Amino acid sequence: MRIARFSIDGNVAFGAVEGEGPDGLVLDIIKGIPYVDFELSGTKVPLSKVRLLPPVLPNKVVAIGRNYAEHAAELGNEVPDVPVAFFKPTTSVIGSGDAIEYPSFSDELHHEAELAVVIGRMCREVPRERVKDVIFGYTCANDVTARDVQQREKQWARAKGFDTACPLGPWVETDLDPSDLTIQCTVNGQQRQLGRTSDMIRSIEDLVVHITEAMTLLPGDVILTGTPAGVGPLNVGDEVAVTIEGIGTLTNKVIKRG
Amino acid sequence: MRIARFSIDGNVAFGAVEGEGPDGLVLDIIKGIPYVDFELSGTKVPLSKVRLLPPVLPNKVVAIGRNYAEHAAELGNEVPDVPVAFFKPTTSVIGSGDAIEYPSFSDELHHEAELAVVIGRMCREVPRERVKDVIFGYTCANDVTARDVQQREKQWARAKGFDTACPLGPWVETDLDPSDLTIQCTVNGQQRQLGRTSDMIRSIEDLVVHITEAMTLLPGDVILTGTPAGVGPLNVGDEVAVTIEGIGTLTNKVIKRG
Repeated sequence: MRIARFSIDGNVAFGAVEGEGPDGLVLDIIKGIPYVDFELSGTKVPLSKVRLLPPVLPNKVVAIGRNYAEHAAELGNEVPDVPVAFFKPTTSVIGSGDAIEYPSFSDELHHEAELAVVIGRMCREVPRERVKDVIFGYTCANDVTARDVQQREKQWARAKGFDTACPLGPWVETDLDPSDLTIQCTVNGQQRQLGRTSDMIRSIEDLVVHITEAMTLLPGDVILTGTPAGVGPLNVGDEVAVTIEGIGTLTNKVIKRG
Repeated sequence: MRIARFSIDGNVAFGAVEGEGPDGLVLDIIKGIPYVDFELSGTKVPLSKVRLLPPVLPNKVVAIGRNYAEHAAELGNEVPDVPVAFFKPTTSVIGSGDAIEYPSFSDELHHEAELAVVIGRMCREVPRERVKDVIFGYTCANDVTARDVQQREKQWARAKGFDTACPLGPWVETDLDPSDLTIQCTVNGQQRQLGRTSDMIRSIEDLVVHITEAMTLLPGDVILTGTPAGVGPLNVGDEVAVTIEGIGTLTNKVIKRG
């Protein structure tokens, strides 16, 4: 099931996305909370009539750096002995269709297309064989990065945590085998990144075990699993799209911060 | 005014701390929300009858590394050209009297006594002269750090973000000049750290400008301003106390994770 969060006439709701293609998609409005217990109301609205919001409201976003060997190499980095884990704050999260604001303190903004894991239940110290039980679904993410700031500042709070640096969407797909999906990123329709989730150095199981060894994850928390090779610049006016097989496309335009 | 958050008989409330000394302290329960608009109810409870909670519920905690020259030097680090900013997740926040759980993946846990700034209003791109307007008050923090993990892992999400790694408290002092206060840390009554906030390399104004250049801060968000020299090990059974002049004492015991 594809679960979106959206606003219509000032009201916010979750809905199940049904149908195919840009004109055929409708939302069946959900009664209840997706992570807990819900049913479909039967009330349907065309997707074209709503504004998509970030599909989850995370308490935290834990992101993983250098999880694809070719991407680590393209930036001159070695594959790390242990996963590189960092946070993106909730104030950086936007949805599909929202604008990425080019930060005033950077001259080199980069896209990073990533598979995002959405957590479905509160968990800590998750054993490998239970990882699938704590996952609610998957969505597309763009780990937007001020590359020059990342290189200047030892920790990445500003480089990867500025407002709008974490597009998520368009919705969460709950029925998906994430082990071998294509991840693509285009800018203005030109392909920049193309990879497969099977090339991750650490699997989703590895990452959930690693993160929850240290910290509790809550329903709606998000794990970004790293980006494949091909990262590159974004400029004001660009439209960047992240497409993951079996999920859909997350699209955002880059604007000047107003 | 000293504003605490506490629970009594299963109810959670904010209260103004009145009186002096361990037996004379009472809480005047607050009607409303401290950041917005509130009045004192006149209903008083002895502090000794309540359980203190973290005095704020942050959306995010932004912490600053290496902001005291002597501390940078004691770990063999240079003073950075730009502040080192990182996040501690909300799942790491505990209050005074709560236990610090020794993480299973570390053999070298350290205390780091710090002045914490509590933000009072939503803000971004705060000009230096407006910084005082966005600050609600100040509390004590312990930026508990798995030093061995910090040295092994390039980003500090696990080393400084594990559950219980962010004690805050005992309360927020709203009337305080933070520019030259003593910060002290003791372990089992023995002094480990003693510094003055006047020795910060970057001032609170510098830090708020630097952080809000990139990201929006929300009411209740917290900035940790760095630790003075004298960091050192914590062991299971230790009682660690952070005392800041004009605020009070944040006390936590270290236990084995159960």
